[in-house]
Amino acid sequence: MVKTAILGFGVVGSGVAEVLSGSGNGVSRRPDSLIEVKYILDVRKFPDSPFAPLFVDDFSTIESDPEISVVVETIGGMGAALDFTERALKAGKSVVTSNKELVATHGRRLLDLAAEHGVVYLFEASVGGGIPILRPLSECMAANDILEICGILNGTCNYIFTRMVQDGVTFQEALKGAQANGYAEQDPTADVEGYDTCRKLCILSSIAFGWHMLPEQIPTRGITEITQADEAYAAASGCRIKLLGRAVMGQDGKVTAYVEPHFVPMDNPLASVDDVFNAILLKGDATGDVMFYGKGAGKLPTASAVCADVIAAARKLERAGYRPWQANRPECVGSLDDLSSRWYVRLAHGALADAQRLIYGRVDAAERTYITNQSMTRPQMEALLADLPVLAAIRVLD
Amino acid sequence: MVKTAILGFGVVGSGVAEVLSGSGNGVSRRPDSLIEVKYILDVRKFPDSPFAPLFVDDFSTIESDPEISVVVETIGGMGAALDFTERALKAGKSVVTSNKELVATHGRRLLDLAAEHGVVYLFEASVGGGIPILRPLSECMAANDILEICGILNGTCNYIFTRMVQDGVTFQEALKGAQANGYAEQDPTADVEGYDTCRKLCILSSIAFGWHMLPEQIPTRGITEITQADEAYAAASGCRIKLLGRAVMGQDGKVTAYVEPHFVPMDNPLASVDDVFNAILLKGDATGDVMFYGKGAGKLPTASAVCADVIAAARKLERAGYRPWQANRPECVGSLDDLSSRWYVRLAHGALADAQRLIYGRVDAAERTYITNQSMTRPQMEALLADLPVLAAIRVLD
Repeated sequence: MVKTAILGFGVVGSGVAEVLSGSGNGVSRRPDSLIEVKYILDVRKFPDSPFAPLFVDDFSTIESDPEISVVVETIGGMGAALDFTERALKAGKSVVTSNKELVATHGRRLLDLAAEHGVVYLFEASVGGGIPILRPLSECMAANDILEICGILNGTCNYIFTRMVQDGVTFQEALKGAQANGYAEQDPTADVEGYDTCRKLCILSSIAFGWHMLPEQIPTRGITEITQADEAYAAASGCRIKLLGRAVMGQDGKVTAYVEPHFVPMDNPLASVDDVFNAILLKGDATGDVMFYGKGAGKLPTASAVCADVIAAARKLERAGYRPWQANRPECVGSLDDLSSRWYVRLAHGALADAQRLIYGRVDAAERTYITNQSMTRPQMEALLADLPVLAAIRVLD
Repeated sequence: MVKTAILGFGVVGSGVAEVLSGSGNGVSRRPDSLIEVKYILDVRKFPDSPFAPLFVDDFSTIESDPEISVVVETIGGMGAALDFTERALKAGKSVVTSNKELVATHGRRLLDLAAEHGVVYLFEASVGGGIPILRPLSECMAANDILEICGILNGTCNYIFTRMVQDGVTFQEALKGAQANGYAEQDPTADVEGYDTCRKLCILSSIAFGWHMLPEQIPTRGITEITQADEAYAAASGCRIKLLGRAVMGQDGKVTAYVEPHFVPMDNPLASVDDVFNAILLKGDATGDVMFYGKGAGKLPTASAVCADVIAAARKLERAGYRPWQANRPECVGSLDDLSSRWYVRLAHGALADAQRLIYGRVDAAERTYITNQSMTRPQMEALLADLPVLAAIRVLD
């Protein structure tokens, strides 16, 4: 049993408590869930929380408890977060965080401090929320030189652009909508001015290129000047506007990193990343382009990334191997005959009821094609079509 | 220095030799490249290869050499590959492979054998080629219960569909084109009948759900019956046809895994995955949908995934931490003023030479918008526009 302490009971910290305790999702079914939350540190009181007995208000309780081997820092910022992280590492405890500002600014020194004390400092959740990106970049692409990083790293900006395009609203209107939906802070400066993207790009660049890129080395432009007319022209030219964090390795070995809005052609996979989704495109010299896509923020996605790091820190001894898998379980194999879908059906002639007819000019007029209105299993579909001249029947993905 | 042996000098094996020796790409610049290829085993002779001195023809040379700590198995199939993998693991050597057939069928037993002998059996390259997927699934999503896997796992099938849609050719014509371009084997059965997708889905399912899914438990349909008419109707209904490997966790805890062609709506990110690209969508209960995208095959992408596993096996001692990064290097920071792009330019009035005019109806007639034909730096662009009434200037991503 590995015992942890969570510093800061805000959105992410409370999500971590839920996931680790199994109350937020099914994590308790996992064989890895031998992790117990022993303390939660917060200046506020949460008497009604199921975790109320765990609250402490003095960090030294955690620092001096030899049972605590992993500390989760979800305070944010560079004040207490930095102080507690340093003290935890010096006390021989691994630290896991989602604090991009701290890692972007002090990451190198904190990594050194962790190594000196034989522990680890992990921060998968600091970039891309729940998208696995830092570990794949660090480990799976270890045989590549990274030539370029190009990412949509801030969900707030991307949500604003998506609303401007899809709903035809202004930047200010889209920003207000983002705030109303909880996708933007009341002070949105860090998001819309690109600072958040800049910090994440620092972390990606430092791992990709092997030396600490600092925020002040990344020229940063935000999105506040983008108008509806610009969006319309982007569409007219087959592009979408996206705020990109980009770092390019030059022939001279120098890395140029910057944050700027871009026109992105629709044939680039980044162009169709909408709403609060993030995506990061990495160009490796051997593997070419690989892209990682998912929700870049949110309580449970971010908490799940933090928890994966806690698990990684906890099971250091087996960490090069995959999570072990057990023997086959025939009793757990579901029957495909029970899986329902809508179906595409092409008939040589005749008609299908309760289905949407598809029209396509070039095909023989006797043929009829449909997508069924109802979901059904393959046996149900085959029974339905038993007396019809079926040319094709293909499952429709929901 | 970690010493390795490569079994099988085919496309992937020779790529691994190139990447590990630094002759194929820039891997030699990596701090991890403390890995030496000591032997290559192949029944064929390659007298003109730069690796000719390394060839041996008796596996017992490798098996009995205590200097060899990692063996790369790129033979394929289940004959010699299985025998040599078992012997290597029993001899206390970690084994890395791209052999999906062997892992899908015997993976569980070989993982156990590796654990018994205190070594690791790694196979990142067996699914998705150069796309990092198994390690992110195993480690970064460790705090999630996986609810669904849905992937385009076979580049050959996807290339055939893309040609049918984009070039209007038949299945047979597209298959011939794939063979001519080296994207399909002369015997394409394993690809077009879905067996390759089935094996990869076995491996993904086993890691995701924690018990060994066997190929014979996965109903598998191929793509040979898909016609141009089906593709046309798919387009008419706002879909694309894709061969998907899919595994769905039911409410009853059973997993239904199958391989079938599907209609995929264009608003699903899988629909726009074209050509030989692969993509894998994972649905976690906490993190939601995450997608991994990249080239699913090819010599260097696959070799780079194998080499990442070799590096992981070699540096077991530091494996929970990210690859360390060094202090900031101001001399390596490139200037954004040197980075060239084309530019979107919106003028209040006037005209821009050597640029493509964009037309969009709703905008004030006095305005003119352009995308420059030439790439230029921001200072060059600003000089060019110095005397013009610029309303907006945004970089175009190449």
